[in-house]
Amino acid sequence: MDLTRAAAEALDAADPLAAFRDRFAGAGEDGLLYLDGNSLGRMPVETPAALARVVEEEWARGLVRSWSSWVGAATRVGDLLAEGVLGARPGEVLVADSTTVDLYKLLVAAADARPGRDVLVCSADDFPTDRYVVAGVAQARGMTVREVPADADEGLDPAVLATALDERVAVVVLSAVAYRSGALADVAAVTRTAREAGALVVWDLSHAAGAVPVDLAADGVDLAVGCTYKYLNGGPGAPAFLYVRRELQERLRQPIWGWFGQRDQFAMGPAYDPVPGVERFAVGTPPVLALAAVEVGARLVAEAGVDRLAAKGRALGELVVALADAWLAPHGVALASPRDPARRGAHVTLASPSAWQLTQALVDRGVVPDFRTPDRVRLGPAPLYTRFVDVWDAMACLRDVLASGAHEGYPAERSRVT
Amino acid sequence: MDLTRAAAEALDAADPLAAFRDRFAGAGEDGLLYLDGNSLGRMPVETPAALARVVEEEWARGLVRSWSSWVGAATRVGDLLAEGVLGARPGEVLVADSTTVDLYKLLVAAADARPGRDVLVCSADDFPTDRYVVAGVAQARGMTVREVPADADEGLDPAVLATALDERVAVVVLSAVAYRSGALADVAAVTRTAREAGALVVWDLSHAAGAVPVDLAADGVDLAVGCTYKYLNGGPGAPAFLYVRRELQERLRQPIWGWFGQRDQFAMGPAYDPVPGVERFAVGTPPVLALAAVEVGARLVAEAGVDRLAAKGRALGELVVALADAWLAPHGVALASPRDPARRGAHVTLASPSAWQLTQALVDRGVVPDFRTPDRVRLGPAPLYTRFVDVWDAMACLRDVLASGAHEGYPAERSRVT
Repeated sequence: MDLTRAAAEALDAADPLAAFRDRFAGAGEDGLLYLDGNSLGRMPVETPAALARVVEEEWARGLVRSWSSWVGAATRVGDLLAEGVLGARPGEVLVADSTTVDLYKLLVAAADARPGRDVLVCSADDFPTDRYVVAGVAQARGMTVREVPADADEGLDPAVLATALDERVAVVVLSAVAYRSGALADVAAVTRTAREAGALVVWDLSHAAGAVPVDLAADGVDLAVGCTYKYLNGGPGAPAFLYVRRELQERLRQPIWGWFGQRDQFAMGPAYDPVPGVERFAVGTPPVLALAAVEVGARLVAEAGVDRLAAKGRALGELVVALADAWLAPHGVALASPRDPARRGAHVTLASPSAWQLTQALVDRGVVPDFRTPDRVRLGPAPLYTRFVDVWDAMACLRDVLASGAHEGYPAERSRVT
Repeated sequence: MDLTRAAAEALDAADPLAAFRDRFAGAGEDGLLYLDGNSLGRMPVETPAALARVVEEEWARGLVRSWSSWVGAATRVGDLLAEGVLGARPGEVLVADSTTVDLYKLLVAAADARPGRDVLVCSADDFPTDRYVVAGVAQARGMTVREVPADADEGLDPAVLATALDERVAVVVLSAVAYRSGALADVAAVTRTAREAGALVVWDLSHAAGAVPVDLAADGVDLAVGCTYKYLNGGPGAPAFLYVRRELQERLRQPIWGWFGQRDQFAMGPAYDPVPGVERFAVGTPPVLALAAVEVGARLVAEAGVDRLAAKGRALGELVVALADAWLAPHGVALASPRDPARRGAHVTLASPSAWQLTQALVDRGVVPDFRTPDRVRLGPAPLYTRFVDVWDAMACLRDVLASGAHEGYPAERSRVT
């Protein structure tokens, strides 16, 4: 690979997604080399107008009369994600609650659907909230958690996972893309293996949706949840999505019985009687303002096309890896993601004992990565708005910091809030 | 009471809260007689700017660096509600999730705190989502639900409730203001009675907060939840609040273990170890955009003062009752709320076999009440922005509709979405 800046510029010139950069506020203007789209995506230029419309027209002027449109927003945006991003069918995706709450709902529903089984499986290296939800549900139900060991850099070995699957396992919770290493799971194979063992899998697509090809129908996925404020650019704390395969919907019942899951909810009937469709996984009143922002972000991803995004994400990642090998390895900074791009999501992680100091030095120089304990720097060049030269410049900055030792002047101790 | 329009004008002229009307978009401009603030409050004029600030400055420009401010938003807005609206102490209120999810969390936590008790108590006339949550939790835990009968107009009789409280009761779920009738519970007395029986009460303050005096500390309340999009004007589907008395916080553990309830969450430690404070009832990433809107609404209510709002709300209700007696009773429309203003929230309900037709006729004439099955029209004149003449005009419109029979031309069958 040609590692000159001119080569990066040539990649940008040939990038079919290059024009999407102008659809995001700040990109190209704020001077930031923002490599944290895997944590919080940038704001689409259209978002303020969409919010203004829902706030100033629908809320302020329409008032309660706007419920005729709001009442379907969670499935309307869900269908957009289903068809444009997730490879699912209409009526299989709902946008509601937080990722954690959605995971809880689907996990309990899945565990209920596997009576007599008393084990929940997760990855020991999975995102904290996923592991905590699993632990909480297990404790409440008197179940056992099997935390499958995962390689910190390479992710979960499917063969190791397979040994954890037996007739006691009710549900497996796994991330399609590991939050720290970026390791990409083989969603279809794992789902098949688990199904053969009689278990259901709840996939967490938080670091996958909008970044790697996701094809829930083709992969035979039963249940999934995911975040909309990362590669889907829905805004900080945007509501999450949940997916339930159509054939499974009527057989599952989630634990939080709320009025938005009720058949003919405004009849306000005496007994809970959930709708047959995916709306039975809804709970309370939908977050109307936030849904408008999610809709904008989801539309942009659908318009760009997940395959093109994934291809660019992989190319950006390959540039990170090549530059890390050439420039950073001599300074003791190691790749902490799968080297094979087919086994990696859209972010690339580096390991260094100085990771926290390096993160601070980069931020001060206009490069925004993120730090993950204990010794990782994550670089998430979101394909919708990150250029190849942005990656080149950011890596050059990191190289220069390492060469000059500029990071050594920063506190080695992480502060409580990062 | 002088029932002339001039008398209503005189009440407005003497209203210490009159100036707040200009703080709401549309009030005084859109010609609507909006009597549905008990369902969805109007939009504060300041809300679009607050949203623009969080979206265009904090998100678009600040990006992940804004987390240093966002991470405390749920408790910052919670403290504002605690001190300005709920009579609670700082550190006792959190704004997170929907009312239904919050009720679920507190109900499960409370049931766990009463081991050996196997009954949940609620009111048979309570809001559907409250009853459904109680039913769902009871079914999951093998508990029994005791639905205490409540008078549809007068609300729950404390003496009837008392007979349902025995050593089997773990938790009681009740609304401080009944959603249909507006009946106001004696929060302190019910809490005391339940405590004497060894039960915890989770209060639903959705129709109370910002409308009637709420004094959680003085009333000895242990647990409460409530909606922010009604009298608190936080916007459609705004996140709810939950309250946990400080002394109880460390003894309770909620069922949805998420990373925002975790001590030192960014350490991403292996085991769930909830923070000691009210944040342990947080679950996922906070809804940052929506919180900004809630903050605006909560500040307005705090600025107006709950006592002044409650006094005006009561006076508006008294005008509704007096006009209903004088003008509507001859047409067979009956008061379906407690007649004693001390036993009533800020909304007043009317009963008529033609309730649905009347609702449609009113909406077509610029009067917005809401309909509640099977035969109720709710009038919720929110004291922050509703004038006495608005009530007078709306009631005159209803009188004229009844007198002319104009409502008889509307469908008698309720549509699915109201």
